[in-house]
Amino acid sequence: MSNLTEKDDAMDLCIEWLEEQGATIDGMAEVLLELQTKYIPGLTKEMCKENIVGVLKKREVQHAVMTGLELDRLAEEGLLREPLLSCIQKDYSLYGVDENLSLGICHVFGSISYTNFGYLDRLKPGILGELDSKNGKRRCSTFIDDIACALIASAASRMAHGAKKK
Amino acid sequence: MSNLTEKDDAMDLCIEWLEEQGATIDGMAEVLLELQTKYIPGLTKEMCKENIVGVLKKREVQHAVMTGLELDRLAEEGLLREPLLSCIQKDYSLYGVDENLSLGICHVFGSISYTNFGYLDRLKPGILGELDSKNGKRRCSTFIDDIACALIASAASRMAHGAKKK
Amino acid sequence: MSNLTEKDDAMDLCIEWLEEQGATIDGMAEVLLELQTKYIPGLTKEMCKENIVGVLKKREVQHAVMTGLELDRLAEEGLLREPLLSCIQKDYSLYGVDENLSLGICHVFGSISYTNFGYLDRLKPGILGELDSKNGKRRCSTFIDDIACALIASAASRMAHGAKKK
Amino acid sequence: MSNLTEKDDAMDLCIEWLEEQGATIDGMAEVLLELQTKYIPGLTKEMCKENIVGVLKKREVQHAVMTGLELDRLAEEGLLREPLLSCIQKDYSLYGVDENLSLGICHVFGSISYTNFGYLDRLKPGILGELDSKNGKRRCSTFIDDIACALIASAASRMAHGAKKK
Repeated sequence: MSNLTEKDDAMDLCIEWLEEQGATIDGMAEVLLELQTKYIPGLTKEMCKENIVGVLKKREVQHAVMTGLELDRLAEEGLLREPLLSCIQKDYSLYGVDENLSLGICHVFGSISYTNFGYLDRLKPGILGELDSKNGKRRCSTFIDDIACALIASAASRMAHGAKKK
Repeated sequence: MSNLTEKDDAMDLCIEWLEEQGATIDGMAEVLLELQTKYIPGLTKEMCKENIVGVLKKREVQHAVMTGLELDRLAEEGLLREPLLSCIQKDYSLYGVDENLSLGICHVFGSISYTNFGYLDRLKPGILGELDSKNGKRRCSTFIDDIACALIASAASRMAHGAKKK
Repeated sequence: MSNLTEKDDAMDLCIEWLEEQGATIDGMAEVLLELQTKYIPGLTKEMCKENIVGVLKKREVQHAVMTGLELDRLAEEGLLREPLLSCIQKDYSLYGVDENLSLGICHVFGSISYTNFGYLDRLKPGILGELDSKNGKRRCSTFIDDIACALIASAASRMAHGAKKK
Repeated sequence: MSNLTEKDDAMDLCIEWLEEQGATIDGMAEVLLELQTKYIPGLTKEMCKENIVGVLKKREVQHAVMTGLELDRLAEEGLLREPLLSCIQKDYSLYGVDENLSLGICHVFGSISYTNFGYLDRLKPGILGELDSKNGKRRCSTFIDDIACALIASAASRMAHGAKKK
């Protein structure tokens, strides 16, 4: 069952799936840089990229990303039963599973990520706005925009914890 | 978009989907009765059923139930991409999304439900053991057994909060 | 043990403790009105107040509010041991218990509250900014500002779920 | 503010506070060994100790531990206001903050820890039963028993994730 145990392969796949739908590491790193530059002097986009990739190394994160992106794809292809299909296709505000899955990502990186998650999810700066406004390649982006918010928010928390170590 | 706004219809559908896969209200009520009978004198199976149905009235619960059961079905029908497909088909212990979705149900009913959820999920009494051992109609039961645990645990918490009101 | 079982008395006490420290129902209602007025036509401050009080009726919410406000008071009075004392007195960004306690409030009201919580916690509009900038009566406001964010965010979610019922 | 930034010092202090109240690393390691020995062949108590200490290295865990143990102490010394004081002194089943704080610990180590947490919290094997039955040095053990459960459950999850890496 090597598929399941090779974390690095799963990470590469997550990055591929995310990038295919417009959630590029580069685009997410830009939002992160904008978000954290005032707290961390000398922060570079390269460091932001490293931290987003660092978040994607965790197995539970990979599983949440893959599950969310598959649900977006299945909704777009009409492969889910009603009323779940409409719920996801229309990004129904009371659906909640997208936020729960995303919060599952944030949990691993501690409480700083929660507040950043909510902030990004409401304001949708940069690439996040493009995902949400369906400019991504997929027409259904119910999960991907929350997941991208969670990845950025978690990377911010990862950075804050790491910075304090020194 | 009446599908999305009629909570009672969505509840009936959840019950139908759960019962089709062997997670009957009756079977879950039996586990709940066994779990709580020592704390609540005079507790009947009928009261247990009412509390499980009460949990299923909440919209976020309905969405979690439908999403989990659809993922089980899609895994069984081979409609998910690898390595997610194997993860769910084999109920991979580090998958984590099943527990996260279930905890999302528990959250709504307060902290008593967390401990009951973990207890039930480890011991799998009654109907829960049957779901997990693939005696349910579906061969893939990665989500349904955790969801049934969460519904029972949440009903126990709902009951405890209600009982104290009097 | 009537203290513990009379939920309405505990609610009145929570409101009293909150108002003493500057987190008035009125001030929180103003933030809620500002936050939700574009989504709910005809929303009034009175309706916002009712929903914040509705959130405070839940027992788990009351316990989280009381625990957080007591920790602020104990920190201010120097009654906690180090290094916890400094952590809370200085609102150390990696402390995390304040966010966890607040998220415990949000959980009861569903996933809409998470995003609003983070948004409010970052931007601190209206009364929230005053609490955070130590204009409240207490010099230590590590918990109260997160708790006020959680109460407002939960009231927004409560409102959204209620509005859809009709 | 070196107190706040020296994670290893804070860890040593957490261990000291835990051991003073009867929650020894050794006793927790015994429960962990019993819990996981059937899943991990060749597991030793030494490895269990290392994993519990590994959990205590995380800053958010340290803060949750210190906050919980201080609340137990303050309740015992009568330094909290009513009705919170009675709530904690009597380990009121609907209090909920003890479980929320503990779940905050578990979150960092992934979803396997949730189910183990609930299981341990209901059955209280070994040292956990002694803490709960007030055989610990402190008369108030509302937080410490849940925290010890969370530390053991998190160590089990940490171990499971680590084992799969190889």
